[in-house]
Amino acid sequence: MHFSHHHLLGIQDLTAEDISLILDTASSFKEVSAREVKKVPTLRGHTVVNLFYEPSTRTRTSFEIAAKRLSADVLNIAISTSSVVKGESLKDTVKTIEAMQPSIIIIRHAGSGVPQMVSRLTRCSVINAGDGSHEHPTQGLLDMFTIREKKGRIEGLKIAIIGDILHSRVARSNIWGLIKMGAKVILCGPPTLMPIGIERLGVEVTYDLTEAVSGADIIMLLRLQLERQKNSMFPSVREYAEFYGLKESHLQFAKTDVLIMHPGPINRDVEISGAVADGQHSLILEQVTNGIAVRMAVLYLVSMGKMEEN
Amino acid sequence: MHFSHHHLLGIQDLTAEDISLILDTASSFKEVSAREVKKVPTLRGHTVVNLFYEPSTRTRTSFEIAAKRLSADVLNIAISTSSVVKGESLKDTVKTIEAMQPSIIIIRHAGSGVPQMVSRLTRCSVINAGDGSHEHPTQGLLDMFTIREKKGRIEGLKIAIIGDILHSRVARSNIWGLIKMGAKVILCGPPTLMPIGIERLGVEVTYDLTEAVSGADIIMLLRLQLERQKNSMFPSVREYAEFYGLKESHLQFAKTDVLIMHPGPINRDVEISGAVADGQHSLILEQVTNGIAVRMAVLYLVSMGKMEEN
Amino acid sequence: MHFSHHHLLGIQDLTAEDISLILDTASSFKEVSAREVKKVPTLRGHTVVNLFYEPSTRTRTSFEIAAKRLSADVLNIAISTSSVVKGESLKDTVKTIEAMQPSIIIIRHAGSGVPQMVSRLTRCSVINAGDGSHEHPTQGLLDMFTIREKKGRIEGLKIAIIGDILHSRVARSNIWGLIKMGAKVILCGPPTLMPIGIERLGVEVTYDLTEAVSGADIIMLLRLQLERQKNSMFPSVREYAEFYGLKESHLQFAKTDVLIMHPGPINRDVEISGAVADGQHSLILEQVTNGIAVRMAVLYLVSMGKMEEN
Repeated sequence: MHFSHHHLLGIQDLTAEDISLILDTASSFKEVSAREVKKVPTLRGHTVVNLFYEPSTRTRTSFEIAAKRLSADVLNIAISTSSVVKGESLKDTVKTIEAMQPSIIIIRHAGSGVPQMVSRLTRCSVINAGDGSHEHPTQGLLDMFTIREKKGRIEGLKIAIIGDILHSRVARSNIWGLIKMGAKVILCGPPTLMPIGIERLGVEVTYDLTEAVSGADIIMLLRLQLERQKNSMFPSVREYAEFYGLKESHLQFAKTDVLIMHPGPINRDVEISGAVADGQHSLILEQVTNGIAVRMAVLYLVSMGKMEEN
Repeated sequence: MHFSHHHLLGIQDLTAEDISLILDTASSFKEVSAREVKKVPTLRGHTVVNLFYEPSTRTRTSFEIAAKRLSADVLNIAISTSSVVKGESLKDTVKTIEAMQPSIIIIRHAGSGVPQMVSRLTRCSVINAGDGSHEHPTQGLLDMFTIREKKGRIEGLKIAIIGDILHSRVARSNIWGLIKMGAKVILCGPPTLMPIGIERLGVEVTYDLTEAVSGADIIMLLRLQLERQKNSMFPSVREYAEFYGLKESHLQFAKTDVLIMHPGPINRDVEISGAVADGQHSLILEQVTNGIAVRMAVLYLVSMGKMEEN
Repeated sequence: MHFSHHHLLGIQDLTAEDISLILDTASSFKEVSAREVKKVPTLRGHTVVNLFYEPSTRTRTSFEIAAKRLSADVLNIAISTSSVVKGESLKDTVKTIEAMQPSIIIIRHAGSGVPQMVSRLTRCSVINAGDGSHEHPTQGLLDMFTIREKKGRIEGLKIAIIGDILHSRVARSNIWGLIKMGAKVILCGPPTLMPIGIERLGVEVTYDLTEAVSGADIIMLLRLQLERQKNSMFPSVREYAEFYGLKESHLQFAKTDVLIMHPGPINRDVEISGAVADGQHSLILEQVTNGIAVRMAVLYLVSMGKMEEN
């Protein structure tokens, strides 16, 4: 089996076979991080650029560790501290970075579709680390990796995704991926934060949290991204927590072995109660650990795609 | 002899034997930085995280160089440019970092006791790079290393520590360590900057600079940390410099081979005159050089402590 | 042939032979970045410090990649996020960094002459990455490398440098270098942005763009550095673009194989039209690629200079 993509722009572009290949590859890389010496020479002599137009600790750090464990040289470019103050266009920035001959550009940007545009500008592999409200494919992949690892499969599971679906790139990547992998996905959130017509992707929609979690194998919470909401789309954070925050009392309606996921960073006692986040059903920290393995797999596979093209 | 600590949280927790072991280990690492190729494979494949909640060039840089000379992968997380803007709690940040499987977390934080708290949250080794007004143990250790290297011993020396004792984590770490190692410590500073009851630690206190330096083998100045003083605790910087700034005229009262130390960065002509800082008695730059060796030793020893526990 | 300089402070200090040696060395390093594994062990175990007092993506990144491809450990110190907030002097910062035993300090500073001053303070090799309006020698060298690579020679070429000559360190470095290498240099820009008496360097001056580009082999545009101009030295950006912005219509007056250069980042449709910047005569991105090779050569040569001195 062979990965045919030179970029990772979104899960929408992947087949179920592509996804399976990434998850299988991640399984073997997960073993590397369990060793005393967490390092393989796979990308030695390759330069990987983290080009972040939005602040991020978690995703930037995860990609940086993943690249270093593959022995790549990593360059961080955070755009607030960079030449954007001098007004260079995104296109010129990308062409300039490409001229320095990195193998891979990892980009995060507030604009939906920016990584797609960047991929058409450059021969480097481009990995989308989150674009606006569009996709965050490595998050979707690490979520699927975690589910598959814990449940042995994705197909046939009932997976509830709760929260601000409208603004969530994590939700979009997971919906595309989970549907492709045969899961049954139910979305839940306030009506103002639910995209109109989202059912066409093959998901169910409910506005009632108890209904959403009933019989669920997986409950996936979304971060309430207050910083991304231009105007007030729900009355108050307190009211949001009351109606859509997951609490221990909800778990009785789910499967007894239900697993709780959240991409982090969590707002404790807003979208998830502290007790649930820290409880035995929670996979939140395993998601972080798996993020390294999945990103190692993605870095490896897109760079292989590249070499075979040449 | 064997280092039994998985963390380095403060010098208060160490025995004289622990301190001697660290200093002996640092001696052998100092030789590495004197080579043309300043690198050993000790921590290859280990990830070391610099988690700094306060700005720092000097300490962050010293730890970063030390870790790289041990072949570790280093990750810098400066919290002003990170997801704290998204409101994640310290605990969740630490658990997230831990899930990425680093070996060591180096933390600097304005809150006294934060590294202790962090060490209880994680299986990683935790190194305190300065917590509030509490401790800065690697600074204390590099100061003791420097003294021992120059004087051949610490025991029996008269060591004067001058300045803002109240707010100084450097003073606290040195007091604990120097007393354990058998030095005679005398503290000097304005009464408003002298902690009440500090004599119980086994030190002498004076408010007169000439008296403090009389017969001293070592004079250790503290940085006047104006940024840490909430309200005015002395009339003016000028008056402080007049009464507590070390000038060449004071050296006649000390031993003829007195040595002058300062953790840096110095405020020239405030706590120390430029002539003394740059003079033949000054060890200020040797302290910086030794900081690398001591931090290499600490990184090595805590990571060994870790492996033996497993 | 042997490089006798321990520092690279400016092209003014170099002989034509020095320049040729750097360009020849860069040619062999350029091949490294064309490999799959872009890495040689030349500076393994050496620490290289990027000490940047002005924001920069392009130059900092280029030096960082160059150093990493030589296997050096790289330390970035951006002074806005550093202990300058605590008021340490430049001299003390440099002496502190030196005490950490790096091999090379790369410095960018708004003050003309700062790298020269720094070089007198330290035994480390110092590389000027841009000082005020004085010099930016690696930019001049990469420009000469690019010209020589494309034209086979520098001697005898007609090279027009267009723009804000007064504030441009890039112009100054190129003027010194190109004259030494035997080119004929003509400067062009608004009279208020042309240094009085600049002809003494052996260049011609014109205020007419068409005249400047007539018969040119190379047209080198300068960035309009609005951030460096204290008061308004031309009526408006629009008027500047009208009279001194290079457009396709100007190319008919130049040699048919004229090449267009710009140090970047470009202000599109100010000093250069988008069509020219992206056109077939443009070398802008090749300049970036060559920047890595030239900086690898400079890092290597100054560190060799150093070792032979010891």
